Amino acid sequence: MSDIAKIGIVTISDRASKGIYADESGPAIVAFLTEALTTPFEPLVRVIPDERPLIEGTLRDLVDHHDCQLVVTTGGTGPATRDVTPEATEAVCDRMMPGFGELMRAVSLKSVPTAILSRQTAGLRGKSLIINLPGKPGAIRECLMAVFPAVPYCIDLMEGPRLETRPEVVSAFRPKAKPAS
Amino acid sequence: MSDIAKIGIVTISDRASKGIYADESGPAIVAFLTEALTTPFEPLVRVIPDERPLIEGTLRDLVDHHDCQLVVTTGGTGPATRDVTPEATEAVCDRMMPGFGELMRAVSLKSVPTAILSRQTAGLRGKSLIINLPGKPGAIRECLMAVFPAVPYCIDLMEGPRLETRPEVVSAFRPKAKPAS
Amino acid sequence: MSDIAKIGIVTISDRASKGIYADESGPAIVAFLTEALTTPFEPLVRVIPDERPLIEGTLRDLVDHHDCQLVVTTGGTGPATRDVTPEATEAVCDRMMPGFGELMRAVSLKSVPTAILSRQTAGLRGKSLIINLPGKPGAIRECLMAVFPAVPYCIDLMEGPRLETRPEVVSAFRPKAKPAS
Repeated sequence: MSDIAKIGIVTISDRASKGIYADESGPAIVAFLTEALTTPFEPLVRVIPDERPLIEGTLRDLVDHHDCQLVVTTGGTGPATRDVTPEATEAVCDRMMPGFGELMRAVSLKSVPTAILSRQTAGLRGKSLIINLPGKPGAIRECLMAVFPAVPYCIDLMEGPRLETRPEVVSAFRPKAKPAS
Repeated sequence: MSDIAKIGIVTISDRASKGIYADESGPAIVAFLTEALTTPFEPLVRVIPDERPLIEGTLRDLVDHHDCQLVVTTGGTGPATRDVTPEATEAVCDRMMPGFGELMRAVSLKSVPTAILSRQTAGLRGKSLIINLPGKPGAIRECLMAVFPAVPYCIDLMEGPRLETRPEVVSAFRPKAKPAS
Repeated sequence: MSDIAKIGIVTISDRASKGIYADESGPAIVAFLTEALTTPFEPLVRVIPDERPLIEGTLRDLVDHHDCQLVVTTGGTGPATRDVTPEATEAVCDRMMPGFGELMRAVSLKSVPTAILSRQTAGLRGKSLIINLPGKPGAIRECLMAVFPAVPYCIDLMEGPRLETRPEVVSAFRPKAKPAS
């Protein structure tokens, strides 16, 4: 295990990957992590089109060859025919984490009724956590604020690097250990 | 694409399909759609027993041969051994939409604790949206009121016919396009 | 069908199964059921390690050979690499009940943000209901209080034994039958 956390950040967008517009979503995730984490981390950034084999290959590469214990994706989770990020995520994960998608949809639903169209999920590949976020920068922050308090303990449980957060941004929650008996 | 929306309405019930009692659920869906939509639509109505191959065949037929971009089912989503609508729906869909079932159960849970027994789901077959509703007419309306605001935008994203609603019944929500830069 | 209800209670824990510590979770479930049910029941108790084939075999045995129409598990639902209870549950079920996990996570989320890490699910094997509960005794009671009101009616719908509860502990909810017409 390296001494700084490696975090994969994958923007999945046909247009951003072709340079038709600048990717704002990946940088929004990096900005959130920089603000939220006091633990040093190395972001591994990718911008790829909505091609399922490429998404799967990128996720596998970040986890298996680059030792990312956390990978966050943005984009490709809606109902448009090109949106296949959840299917690619499920294909590379051996265990799913349904609570992430449920909570992100419930939180977004307070803002927009179309939150139910978000198909985002999360899952585990070996000892790594992969989380789908929505594509829009505003929704990214809202979803990260909701789920990130649980992320450091999840990484702990998989024996990954200890992530510490700035409590004024987001409080990592770690259930107290049982008192020694 | 035809100029009026085609909407499949499938009642799945052993007893209704045998004429043991009159189907009230399919007509309740047609009544809701007539009240909610200002866009002209053609309802394609089917009443079939709880047989998984027949449910799958009916859904495929409505989507593939009758160009329904929206199919709504009622019945067959509980835990009784004959209830297999969610399994049939998942079998014909290539991508799932977990947010629909989550929201319908959350809404019904405010009325009855047995809402968690509803196994209903929704998914996409190509460019068509298939939504499972509960079997009881009262619950049908409650669930449609909850999820229908997101349906027109979902159909938009799959390049289907533009559905307009009567705002005093249900407001279709379409996120505002980005201002031109 | 025997005249008393048989209920399987399966503690899934490497350490409890090796005797490293005493199992408190299985007894917490038995205590809840004893307090909640007025119907006589026979608890069939198992304590096994987090081995997927063994979990699957135990669930199949309780349902198929011991006629348990309700099986409750505790443990093995988190993200640690040994946690495979949801995968084993899904493997032995022919139909899933997503509403149980959704509600348990929503309820636990009011106490701890790490509730989204719980991967617990529920499903049906033939005419039997299998429910995953969390591993910690405190969370077990909280989750049972949330989902148990729906359990007796679920068992009714699968033609199992009629379970009656003590209303001061937990109220079984059974939707009223339609008035005879």
